[in-house]
Amino acid sequence: MKAAILLTGDEITKGVVKDSNGGYLSEKLTALGFEVQSIVIVPDRKEFIEREISNALDRADLLLITGGLGSTFDDITLQTVADFLGKELIYDSEYHSSLSESFEERYARKAPAGLKRQSFVIQDSIQLANPSGSARGAYIREDNKEIVILPGPPVEMEAVFREALKFITLPPPSYSRTIGFVDLTEPEVEEFTEQMLTEFPSVKFVTRVRYFSGPTVILTSDNESILEEICSLFTRRWKKYVYTTTGEELVQVVVKELKARKLSVSVAESCSGGRLSALLTSVPGVSDVFPGAIVSYSNDIKISLLKVNEDTLNRHGAVSEEVAAEMAAGTKILFGTDIGLSVTGIAGPTGGTETKPVGMVCSAVRIGDLTKTYTDMFRGDRETIQLRGASTVLKRLWRLFWNEFYIE
Amino acid sequence: MKAAILLTGDEITKGVVKDSNGGYLSEKLTALGFEVQSIVIVPDRKEFIEREISNALDRADLLLITGGLGSTFDDITLQTVADFLGKELIYDSEYHSSLSESFEERYARKAPAGLKRQSFVIQDSIQLANPSGSARGAYIREDNKEIVILPGPPVEMEAVFREALKFITLPPPSYSRTIGFVDLTEPEVEEFTEQMLTEFPSVKFVTRVRYFSGPTVILTSDNESILEEICSLFTRRWKKYVYTTTGEELVQVVVKELKARKLSVSVAESCSGGRLSALLTSVPGVSDVFPGAIVSYSNDIKISLLKVNEDTLNRHGAVSEEVAAEMAAGTKILFGTDIGLSVTGIAGPTGGTETKPVGMVCSAVRIGDLTKTYTDMFRGDRETIQLRGASTVLKRLWRLFWNEFYIE
Repeated sequence: MKAAILLTGDEITKGVVKDSNGGYLSEKLTALGFEVQSIVIVPDRKEFIEREISNALDRADLLLITGGLGSTFDDITLQTVADFLGKELIYDSEYHSSLSESFEERYARKAPAGLKRQSFVIQDSIQLANPSGSARGAYIREDNKEIVILPGPPVEMEAVFREALKFITLPPPSYSRTIGFVDLTEPEVEEFTEQMLTEFPSVKFVTRVRYFSGPTVILTSDNESILEEICSLFTRRWKKYVYTTTGEELVQVVVKELKARKLSVSVAESCSGGRLSALLTSVPGVSDVFPGAIVSYSNDIKISLLKVNEDTLNRHGAVSEEVAAEMAAGTKILFGTDIGLSVTGIAGPTGGTETKPVGMVCSAVRIGDLTKTYTDMFRGDRETIQLRGASTVLKRLWRLFWNEFYIE
Repeated sequence: MKAAILLTGDEITKGVVKDSNGGYLSEKLTALGFEVQSIVIVPDRKEFIEREISNALDRADLLLITGGLGSTFDDITLQTVADFLGKELIYDSEYHSSLSESFEERYARKAPAGLKRQSFVIQDSIQLANPSGSARGAYIREDNKEIVILPGPPVEMEAVFREALKFITLPPPSYSRTIGFVDLTEPEVEEFTEQMLTEFPSVKFVTRVRYFSGPTVILTSDNESILEEICSLFTRRWKKYVYTTTGEELVQVVVKELKARKLSVSVAESCSGGRLSALLTSVPGVSDVFPGAIVSYSNDIKISLLKVNEDTLNRHGAVSEEVAAEMAAGTKILFGTDIGLSVTGIAGPTGGTETKPVGMVCSAVRIGDLTKTYTDMFRGDRETIQLRGASTVLKRLWRLFWNEFYIE
């Protein structure tokens, strides 16, 4: 079964708001077995939206539309869909009163007139409750096509999409596995995947790069046990390169390993500014193995809290493997953990020198009394360098778990 | 002048990779004065890409295509564009040799055969250098239409897009200003913007929500001085609600204010796990006013490093305004800063109770001897609660700079 996604909003086509709904919905639909034919983003203009509704229904059984359900004049999705289908818009006075009351209760000032816009429903549609906001969604079935209308703000969209799943007709089950690799390039992964899959012509695959960890292979098949078999072939052959066969993120795998091995970890960050800590704490339940982190942006803090030697700082500079090693040792002691991680580098855009250019990142992993240090040269803007600095340390830690490659 | 953006890739339509190129390119094109007519994402299939090239050229003068320039079998963009335009693909043996050499130098193993794919050029196209990767871009002019082909990985795409700007025909200049508000809702902002702009019918505006700070109004006009005038009208009337009239993010404004007032700030984070620190360090040059942060995930660390009273923790729990206040005081002393910020809450998905549900976040701002504490109830998933917890503290700090609203 085929699906299409239509996102509306000048804020997206003007680049004011970065869309995340397209990614969320395409991932969910794919997991449900839909083939997503297109994700289209157009400004809030009636003729654009109508044209794309028509295009999408030509090529898909299910159309999801997000955005344009707000309270301002350019929120025209309901009207546009109603007109396209030749339906009426019906005023829901009860809903309008409840919206006004809850606004006045929350903000202690008069509800704006614009709320009336959110009180209309398309004739013959099913309303989808929005637990996080005032814009309801709608589900419409018409001539074997299904249309679902969702609000634009991601939190609201996700909640209303879950509601919609009670009504959407789903495709027969298909299975998918995602294998994640570190320290290999995409063409290499594709080459051996192709060889490996010659025996399994019914299995489809696609290779992709997770930008901050490495390439992945996504396998799909209607036969789950064949997928299991292929996954174990991959793990047997590429053990030290494979961190997941179930699509987990590297950080999730690392946290699971830490828990299984009863190892705690703490972090000292300079250039990555909290991003390594934020990455670790994105995993629910990480608190069992992660007491905390220090962002030691200034040298004074490196000295006073992390006990980095002033002499080391003066001799080698804050961005050096020597300082990274002392930061990792310092955080390990400060937080009383089994493992200490550190990152120090030059995130830019300024502050680079000839010998230490923007993008140079030093890092260290200390496990027990063993310290490994690294220097990387990353390309990209400030945020990219910060994120790469943070995630590269996780990659090293994961490899060290297996005593491979990085520890001699 | 009208532009269209076409992003190709199964990884995006399957939701494996979240697209960010659409947002980047639409923002840049809008700033250059283009009207972006559509952003379309399709899987790597020839007929889909051809159909959307044709649609886009019907409605736009400039078409940007990203993705599908890699070294694997589904990288078909060059071939598809060449076929669509009736052009040849020409093999560039010199480029192929240089790619193979640099792979072998970098990875110390044989270059994969796939690299040959990246060594073709479309007849009559201009090659665009890629400083961050092996896939070059291309610029093609044909019958008053312009087509630019860019690689998919964001860092590479941005670098090659900057190259392409040397060739793209630009529209006549237009001007735009973005006004950002805190503590107002979008319909209220729209209502007074409409009133305010009745005198300036030539100025167009659109209101949008920046999800973690508040609504914005984007004004556009071909007359820059009228925009200046309107911006000062806004600031005069809504002073304490307006944090920018030039589109800056709230965190940039906060860092600028800290520098201007020569105030330093440090951070103690629990539930936000490093995101407040990461937010602050996203601003280049923040090190002048930000020595560092503590992520105190465990209570032990709150006690040992931040000197939170054990008694306060036992009596009120880690998620309480009392503990937030002591965390802010503790970080201020630990880092020797003028201001201490803190966040502690329940990010979920588990760990909530009836009196302290998931989404409850306590925070504190300590300036000199003054401490203000807050409790918020946020909706959303773990990441959303972490991000809202982090950004709400910045909002409060900004308001406190003006002694308004939060300090009696």
